[in-house]
Amino acid sequence: MIKTMEWRGNILVLLDQKKLPNVIDFIACYDYRRVAEAIRTMEVRGAPAIGAAAAFAMVLGYKEIRMHGLSGTDVLKKLEEIKRELIDTRPTAVNLAWAVNKIWNAAVNANVNKTIDAVDFLENIAIKIYEDDISNNIKIGHFGAELLPSNATILTHCNAGALATCGWGTALGVVRQGYADGKIKMVYADETRPLLQGARLTAWELEQDDIPVTLITDNMAAWTMKTKKIKAVIVGADRIALNGDVANKIGTYGVALAANALNIPFYVAAATGTFDFKMTSGISIPIEERDGDEVRTFHGQPTSVDNVPVFNPGFDVTPHELITGIITEYGVLTEPYEDMIRQLARKMRRSSND
Amino acid sequence: MIKTMEWRGNILVLLDQKKLPNVIDFIACYDYRRVAEAIRTMEVRGAPAIGAAAAFAMVLGYKEIRMHGLSGTDVLKKLEEIKRELIDTRPTAVNLAWAVNKIWNAAVNANVNKTIDAVDFLENIAIKIYEDDISNNIKIGHFGAELLPSNATILTHCNAGALATCGWGTALGVVRQGYADGKIKMVYADETRPLLQGARLTAWELEQDDIPVTLITDNMAAWTMKTKKIKAVIVGADRIALNGDVANKIGTYGVALAANALNIPFYVAAATGTFDFKMTSGISIPIEERDGDEVRTFHGQPTSVDNVPVFNPGFDVTPHELITGIITEYGVLTEPYEDMIRQLARKMRRSSND
Repeated sequence: MIKTMEWRGNILVLLDQKKLPNVIDFIACYDYRRVAEAIRTMEVRGAPAIGAAAAFAMVLGYKEIRMHGLSGTDVLKKLEEIKRELIDTRPTAVNLAWAVNKIWNAAVNANVNKTIDAVDFLENIAIKIYEDDISNNIKIGHFGAELLPSNATILTHCNAGALATCGWGTALGVVRQGYADGKIKMVYADETRPLLQGARLTAWELEQDDIPVTLITDNMAAWTMKTKKIKAVIVGADRIALNGDVANKIGTYGVALAANALNIPFYVAAATGTFDFKMTSGISIPIEERDGDEVRTFHGQPTSVDNVPVFNPGFDVTPHELITGIITEYGVLTEPYEDMIRQLARKMRRSSND
Repeated sequence: MIKTMEWRGNILVLLDQKKLPNVIDFIACYDYRRVAEAIRTMEVRGAPAIGAAAAFAMVLGYKEIRMHGLSGTDVLKKLEEIKRELIDTRPTAVNLAWAVNKIWNAAVNANVNKTIDAVDFLENIAIKIYEDDISNNIKIGHFGAELLPSNATILTHCNAGALATCGWGTALGVVRQGYADGKIKMVYADETRPLLQGARLTAWELEQDDIPVTLITDNMAAWTMKTKKIKAVIVGADRIALNGDVANKIGTYGVALAANALNIPFYVAAATGTFDFKMTSGISIPIEERDGDEVRTFHGQPTSVDNVPVFNPGFDVTPHELITGIITEYGVLTEPYEDMIRQLARKMRRSSND
């Protein structure tokens, strides 16, 4: 399987996801600025993937600081600027801040202002973020597949696959495991306008793995759920609040409303890096508004009248009441979400203190 | 305003809606076959518009029968073939069969097998279908505008405008009247994949009339309803069953589910030609499945992997429980829909007997 990213010590190589599936191309990022640009322009996308990419970008940034011979308080001052620049690339997905802060906190704790060289130390933390993401996704896949009946037809939105993560995928990790376990007959993939992550990435990933997929436009989701005996909806997440509200790719909310009306289980698959334990409710999650030209054009061709006003939110928030379960690497969370997520936060604090 | 179609006695001139809004082009239909092709390929679309176009096609067909010198029972036999060919072009919208049958019944009643020339007679019926559609839409506009609060933000799906009808529009007829009455501040238009009738036609129509419009992708509808204080959803219809179930452009059902969950009134605007009094429930309405390439491509460019399997229903059915009111030229129908629609059917039978 083609990797979303590959760390080569001095370079982060990113698969260019804007060109998929027609062109398979890679971007060699020699510095953190190029990674920031790739995140901003969605050459790399998916909350876990941009988290890991940003962690490697922090390592590239620290290397640059060392190369420029900075020392003393200048080191952390400059690293904080880089951290800020990376976090500002995209506001909604919390994995980005989570991963960047992991490197940042490690740098502070390692006392990088005084230490001769913390490159290996920080690099290993970034590599662990990357590797943990894959192993977490495999666990998520197992927990999620247990929820599925046999021979099920599934619907997913956007791409929460290997491409959105460091590998295997969250929602598509469940699909992969479910398919291996004989539980999945067909996956309906919403195309996911405006950038078509469902059509370009999810359909491509599933075909690569010989998992049966049927492509639909986003407005077919409710009718497909009703007429094609969909047994579960599984999506990823960009940020999960303490009360279980989930920010995910625009359109998720509408899919959740339809699933709810039709009594179809609606699952969110996400590792703990996607939880924002300080955000009490989804209402406060910042929703990125992207350039209207994404809606006004397709492959550079106009879809509508010139300069038509556009509303282009990149995400929406699905309230926890519509969510049947949140599948994490520690197991499946259900209502009451707030209690379960507080428990999860305690568990993670303990394990990070080990 | 540019007309959807213009009857010139021997030619039906159609505005080519596939090329809008970038190119304004017309199709001169010299025979019924070209009209049938235009309906099939959606160069003319919208339930009332294809109804009127097919009525004119029947007149062109009858003229051809006369020209070929057919007489006796051959006349009706050939006309019935033409009728069948026209009805078969698209299965879901009932206006097509309704209009074609109006001409057919008139031909049978006029005893065209024996009559020397019924061209003027049939032509006048087709012209009346066309003119009635416009005057019905104006009435629908008035009834619908009364339902709106002042300064409202509205959401619509697909195009139920002047382009979908003989003029003025059904859903957009309500918008036009509402805007004239100072009741509409902003219209959010779903782009309506796969053929983008919302982006190409609704946005264009509203901009032509200086009515404020904001374009969104289909998967933004639920989030827009929730965050932009949408006061009403108004859509058109392709077929309305006796129990009030409504077949309309794919995506309508999902929008209705979201409106219902958010307690936003969901209105359907349609003239009585869209009612199928013999269809007891929406379950039985035939749903056209169109070519998968419509989903696999966007302006001719691929959106996904080659030959990915596609589900491409052209329509869906919104159950009457989700519909706040059906706005007709006779007034607004509400629950219990079946009683009100039976009443409407009796009223129409009486008026056709007058």
